[in-house]
Amino acid sequence: MREPQARIANRIDLQVELSYEVAAPGADFVFNIHAARTPSQTLSAEQLVLSQALEPQPQAYTDPISGNRYLRLHAAPGALKVSYAVCVDLMHHRDEPSQIDEVPICELPPQVMGYIYPSRYCQADRLLTLATAEFGKLGRGYERVQAIRDWVHSHVTFKSNSSNSSSSAIDTLIERVGVCRDFAHLMIALCRAVNIPARFATGTDYGADPALGPPDFQAYVEVFLGGRWYSFDPSGTAIPMGFVRFGTGRDAADVAFATIFGGVKSQAPVVRARAIEDASIGIVLPHLCRDALSTDVGTTGTSGA
Amino acid sequence: MREPQARIANRIDLQVELSYEVAAPGADFVFNIHAARTPSQTLSAEQLVLSQALEPQPQAYTDPISGNRYLRLHAAPGALKVSYAVCVDLMHHRDEPSQIDEVPICELPPQVMGYIYPSRYCQADRLLTLATAEFGKLGRGYERVQAIRDWVHSHVTFKSNSSNSSSSAIDTLIERVGVCRDFAHLMIALCRAVNIPARFATGTDYGADPALGPPDFQAYVEVFLGGRWYSFDPSGTAIPMGFVRFGTGRDAADVAFATIFGGVKSQAPVVRARAIEDASIGIVLPHLCRDALSTDVGTTGTSGA
Amino acid sequence: MREPQARIANRIDLQVELSYEVAAPGADFVFNIHAARTPSQTLSAEQLVLSQALEPQPQAYTDPISGNRYLRLHAAPGALKVSYAVCVDLMHHRDEPSQIDEVPICELPPQVMGYIYPSRYCQADRLLTLATAEFGKLGRGYERVQAIRDWVHSHVTFKSNSSNSSSSAIDTLIERVGVCRDFAHLMIALCRAVNIPARFATGTDYGADPALGPPDFQAYVEVFLGGRWYSFDPSGTAIPMGFVRFGTGRDAADVAFATIFGGVKSQAPVVRARAIEDASIGIVLPHLCRDALSTDVGTTGTSGA
Amino acid sequence: MREPQARIANRIDLQVELSYEVAAPGADFVFNIHAARTPSQTLSAEQLVLSQALEPQPQAYTDPISGNRYLRLHAAPGALKVSYAVCVDLMHHRDEPSQIDEVPICELPPQVMGYIYPSRYCQADRLLTLATAEFGKLGRGYERVQAIRDWVHSHVTFKSNSSNSSSSAIDTLIERVGVCRDFAHLMIALCRAVNIPARFATGTDYGADPALGPPDFQAYVEVFLGGRWYSFDPSGTAIPMGFVRFGTGRDAADVAFATIFGGVKSQAPVVRARAIEDASIGIVLPHLCRDALSTDVGTTGTSGA
Repeated sequence: MREPQARIANRIDLQVELSYEVAAPGADFVFNIHAARTPSQTLSAEQLVLSQALEPQPQAYTDPISGNRYLRLHAAPGALKVSYAVCVDLMHHRDEPSQIDEVPICELPPQVMGYIYPSRYCQADRLLTLATAEFGKLGRGYERVQAIRDWVHSHVTFKSNSSNSSSSAIDTLIERVGVCRDFAHLMIALCRAVNIPARFATGTDYGADPALGPPDFQAYVEVFLGGRWYSFDPSGTAIPMGFVRFGTGRDAADVAFATIFGGVKSQAPVVRARAIEDASIGIVLPHLCRDALSTDVGTTGTSGA
Repeated sequence: MREPQARIANRIDLQVELSYEVAAPGADFVFNIHAARTPSQTLSAEQLVLSQALEPQPQAYTDPISGNRYLRLHAAPGALKVSYAVCVDLMHHRDEPSQIDEVPICELPPQVMGYIYPSRYCQADRLLTLATAEFGKLGRGYERVQAIRDWVHSHVTFKSNSSNSSSSAIDTLIERVGVCRDFAHLMIALCRAVNIPARFATGTDYGADPALGPPDFQAYVEVFLGGRWYSFDPSGTAIPMGFVRFGTGRDAADVAFATIFGGVKSQAPVVRARAIEDASIGIVLPHLCRDALSTDVGTTGTSGA
Repeated sequence: MREPQARIANRIDLQVELSYEVAAPGADFVFNIHAARTPSQTLSAEQLVLSQALEPQPQAYTDPISGNRYLRLHAAPGALKVSYAVCVDLMHHRDEPSQIDEVPICELPPQVMGYIYPSRYCQADRLLTLATAEFGKLGRGYERVQAIRDWVHSHVTFKSNSSNSSSSAIDTLIERVGVCRDFAHLMIALCRAVNIPARFATGTDYGADPALGPPDFQAYVEVFLGGRWYSFDPSGTAIPMGFVRFGTGRDAADVAFATIFGGVKSQAPVVRARAIEDASIGIVLPHLCRDALSTDVGTTGTSGA
Repeated sequence: MREPQARIANRIDLQVELSYEVAAPGADFVFNIHAARTPSQTLSAEQLVLSQALEPQPQAYTDPISGNRYLRLHAAPGALKVSYAVCVDLMHHRDEPSQIDEVPICELPPQVMGYIYPSRYCQADRLLTLATAEFGKLGRGYERVQAIRDWVHSHVTFKSNSSNSSSSAIDTLIERVGVCRDFAHLMIALCRAVNIPARFATGTDYGADPALGPPDFQAYVEVFLGGRWYSFDPSGTAIPMGFVRFGTGRDAADVAFATIFGGVKSQAPVVRARAIEDASIGIVLPHLCRDALSTDVGTTGTSGA
């Protein structure tokens, strides 16, 4: 009998540091840099340090549907540093890909329906003909989604700084270059175009080739199959088993790491994600595997609660 | 003392008829044609008739956040008729425009934050400079939103069939023609570009010039001000006091009257919205007024519950 | 010895009728509906009838570079009918495809250089990565262009009324449907993206399946190879040997059949293209053939003179 | 009697240096960095130095219609430096703005017609309603064009690096920021949308605020009015009287300073434009003036010959 869940776990020691210079008369920030709490993602030793004594107090908010954790604050002019650290235990739900079906539209949970509609950066409505021609005749299930993921991976080239904040799935389809966010948007748009719910997930990267740059935030894809959200990494740059999940949403418009209102200069974020290995308690290093992975509890269709 | 809520009410007798020809092997539909139940919108004599004996039974679903009422069904090949009728009593919340402030970003209810982000048809992220130049220096409050509404109304010309299902706020800004949906998308995008939450509302029209065509579905705008969602009609074609509200969402992608999966031919919908007058119980005909109108209960920031 | 030019000729009897209703105070028209005079396209019995006695006289103008023939006139309010008839003898230059090379950039005639630049409807600059990935490794020459033509033909579906006057190669690449004009724009953009000069040609259709509608104007592609412009029909709907050429340009912006300035209602054009067969003098019906066809005199790189 | 042409002349000492690193196996270049020869622009002491001994010899080519001077060459791998120097005497044609009419469409020279059609970066076809609403009712003539120029100047903000090589008039209209090239594209598109021929001109800047950066190439606009092409600078950053003209075309796609085919790294161009003053022979420094300026010979409608 196969019980992968019982035996494989990973642990990530995570640190995030953000630095800003705030202009007068101050600025509002909404951060989504806290690791999500899900049945597969357990947090300990969580710590947040802000360099300013803020007035009013920062507000923390967890969205009841998505589980996304937001921090909202008003910063005074001057330097603002945000330091976040957490130890994350990951215990992925794992399945055999060939056993995972698509969910017929008439059986999709109502809360999931929104993820087949087009969104700012995933204009699925314009891709119906293309997606049907390329993927319409494939057998339904996880492997069709894997085919979409592979199509995106092979048609788009990873190139740092090749896109900007207004780049969408349409732009990536035309220009064929992008970063992880662009791969994710195109894969999401194509899934939705064949009526498979797909959403945008953010978090931290793990295992990427250092030639691509230092550890960074990461954008990837979750697709609703067989009653649960499974993770996909169309950029193919990393080891998905080591991703720590922050937030999920329709696309990048919903889950920016930081949304800023006011005059602010930003430095590049510093992200450190170190995997811990401890064979004595069954904790291994994240590694590539062909199993389907999910950090979702499944069955209800809600977004990870 | 002013107590407008206590004295003015409207009643709309509403009928909607949709007709489809479904091709083999059948099709899935998601309808959003039920009037919403809100504190300001009371329903009676509601009736839905479907021409097919459906198997499985249609599923009705009310979204707990938005209050949108969806009907999902799988239709067999052949004719499908959907007939909906309801009597709607409207009792708008009314306010003096000059008394309504904007809500500072740091005080926005968390559930409302999503309505300042860009969406499929409202690419606010590309309009920041334009919106700031045009509206950034105006006094904050209802009257600034009214200025945005007036700008859209005066810069765009209403023209039937001038846009299609992929037309967005950007297209309307460039081409300067559209239908009610396009006016709404542009107004929403401009509001969000100056950090005012705005959403897309659908329902039925009232009072439009018959020269523009028979009564039809209507798209309009709700803007979050002073702790409550207020209605705006940037197309200026109708009498907002007579609108019956069906659904609200980010934009048209969220609240289509009918989302269809499969081979289906549609006829134009038939909509009849007749206002009832009964002075004896204080029910008057909808009319244009300069008060701010809301069908929202306010204070909580949720979408109408 | 192979002398195809000496032995195969075609003859097309062509009639075009355009009908307009001109609003006050009149309107300006620029027509490009005259068959071009080229070494391969000989005209006889040409006749133009206008229903209005025009003041000032219409101006006919032949562009010295392209050979396009324009008719410019100012019409008074009321009906305007334009009837054009001509008998066209076609004697295509024909070549064996495998013998036709591309011209290196440094040897392109200066007048041809403009046809590798992007234009209104052929945004080649955004397709460099895609075109290089798909066609960059193919052997240079006619057959690479044929591969581009086949790619467009197999990735896009012909569908009447699926596009409009602002549809461009980018839109066709995304939405994968279009009419002959859209197939042409996409093929041109892809050729230019791999540095092969390509231009838009207009004229009349021949041999299309009547199920696609009555005979009509036609848009197709000419590509500069081996010192001469060769014809391609990416829509694959017709028999290119029977096309009568009107004009050539960067894209549809340059060679509209009618450009209208003022308030005018148009009826659908009536086009009749009848092929004449007369074996006694070597005139045969146009037919599909695998030879490369050109109506260009070649060698100089000018556009057909 | 007014004879401004006889009395005001300017002299610019111009140097341009371009530096490239060419990858194997070499690359093709097309340069348009030679000052045009026009009746108003006289050249002396012209010198071109290339750092490579090129094989085959570079080809110089002057387009007979536009007068644009192109240099085409194939460079070997390694460094390539292009140094160009010239002394330019400018003697602008000057007119009183209020005396300059628009040319009715039916009287436009045929060679000018192409400049009312949309092009890659000037999608005039989508701006008809906007342009008619904003400028349709103004009196015809130079002053209407000046109003278009002023509208662009006041609605768009100059910001270095705010756009890229695929930015078009549509993008500038939406995002409201750009560099001189973007101002030019938007002004051209708006002129064409009200049927006024307009073209893109390139050359060198003069008189710009050093805070905007070192002297650079410049893009500006020429509009066909009263039988002649007049210069406009919608970016408002410079002193148009000191511009040296290189090329003209539909838009930036036609007259890039350098079009490169192959693997090449470019350094920023070095441009030195020094005005000479010599009162003894009537040569003064370029200065802002309200006269209409043209470097065109006029009357024929050809592009400056």
